[in-house]
Amino acid sequence: MRDIWLADGNDEAPILAEIEQLAAEARVAVRRVSREHLFGEARTESPQGVIAHAAPLVDVDIDELFVVRSGRPPFVLAVDSLTDPQNLGALLRSADGAGITGVVLPSHRNVHITPSVTKAAAGAIERLPMALVGGLASAMLRMRDHHRAWIVGLDADAETSVFALSHLATDPVVVVIGAEGAGLSRLVRERCDTLAGIPLRGALASLNASAAGAVALFELGRHRA
Amino acid sequence: MRDIWLADGNDEAPILAEIEQLAAEARVAVRRVSREHLFGEARTESPQGVIAHAAPLVDVDIDELFVVRSGRPPFVLAVDSLTDPQNLGALLRSADGAGITGVVLPSHRNVHITPSVTKAAAGAIERLPMALVGGLASAMLRMRDHHRAWIVGLDADAETSVFALSHLATDPVVVVIGAEGAGLSRLVRERCDTLAGIPLRGALASLNASAAGAVALFELGRHRA
Repeated sequence: MRDIWLADGNDEAPILAEIEQLAAEARVAVRRVSREHLFGEARTESPQGVIAHAAPLVDVDIDELFVVRSGRPPFVLAVDSLTDPQNLGALLRSADGAGITGVVLPSHRNVHITPSVTKAAAGAIERLPMALVGGLASAMLRMRDHHRAWIVGLDADAETSVFALSHLATDPVVVVIGAEGAGLSRLVRERCDTLAGIPLRGALASLNASAAGAVALFELGRHRA
Repeated sequence: MRDIWLADGNDEAPILAEIEQLAAEARVAVRRVSREHLFGEARTESPQGVIAHAAPLVDVDIDELFVVRSGRPPFVLAVDSLTDPQNLGALLRSADGAGITGVVLPSHRNVHITPSVTKAAAGAIERLPMALVGGLASAMLRMRDHHRAWIVGLDADAETSVFALSHLATDPVVVVIGAEGAGLSRLVRERCDTLAGIPLRGALASLNASAAGAVALFELGRHRA
């Protein structure tokens, strides 16, 4: 964290005192600025009177996602292409909770890590190691052939249920999640070892992409060490 | 459906032809109106050139949610108080997919069924029977004592895991989901038979409310008939 700006005239709130205390403990400078100045600097539509300037995100090499840490076998989320920042952010937040150990994001087709994504991710972006790759399909070859990862593609039409994959508890596993509506792209789908879906019992034909991702990641994650 | 409006000058798209065909099959009138007229009528921020006027939603009595249909034991979602329309809409969409048979919505504290909720729900609102109640706590007494429902409250701090409730496969079950951040209100929490949480394995302290709801509803739903 580089510094924190607080707008003049913020309402008194315990959270603000807490922010100042945490900043003092972490030796991060706190500046008081005018509301106009802060709103001009903010990148979200409804800034809430506080801005923190963070160090740039560091992305890691894909191979680093497969280093076993704390005895937990790699459990990687790969995002094929999500167009909605809310969905991507919410998915990353769920991924953290489900025990995902790293994330692969293709840099060319995907939504990028925008302020909206960051806000919806609620801290997950700063916590999850992320590898930006040129293309997901070639990254899948690397993960499958070099790291012996088992690649599960989430696909609404798949015959296999995500609830039938509890045997994938100890292998390195990669879960690929595709776009809202269109799903996985052709080459990505072909390179999956398993396509699995979430059985639906209602009247609608599909789930929201981040809801489907949450269900799949928690189901696959809960069997793992 | 009462009628459908199409804006003049919409781009040609297969979905528009499909809408016109479905309207003809269902004998619903289609009107062409100016873009200005349509945008003035729309209740969402970014209308996409089509409006359908639907009949008002009919809410049902709470007792009706416990009538067994198609041999499926009642599996009811009760919403304590969600403030974000996206979360409520996404939750209702997931509820449909998870096999929820009816929804209880308190009419006084909750977000209401706004256009944003309806859009995020992607059709679930028109499909799921919904009971609007004055207060959720008294509705819980009715469901528990009169309908012998087992009431599970989703609570981030609960010691019981939602993944340990597979024995609730045949009883009438009510799942109560509370507000983002604050969780269940005190009286609602006290009236639950079980409080259950989703074990988190990452760095963050909580899940998005609709993601947590999706995980819990699918886990409880997949064991049911």
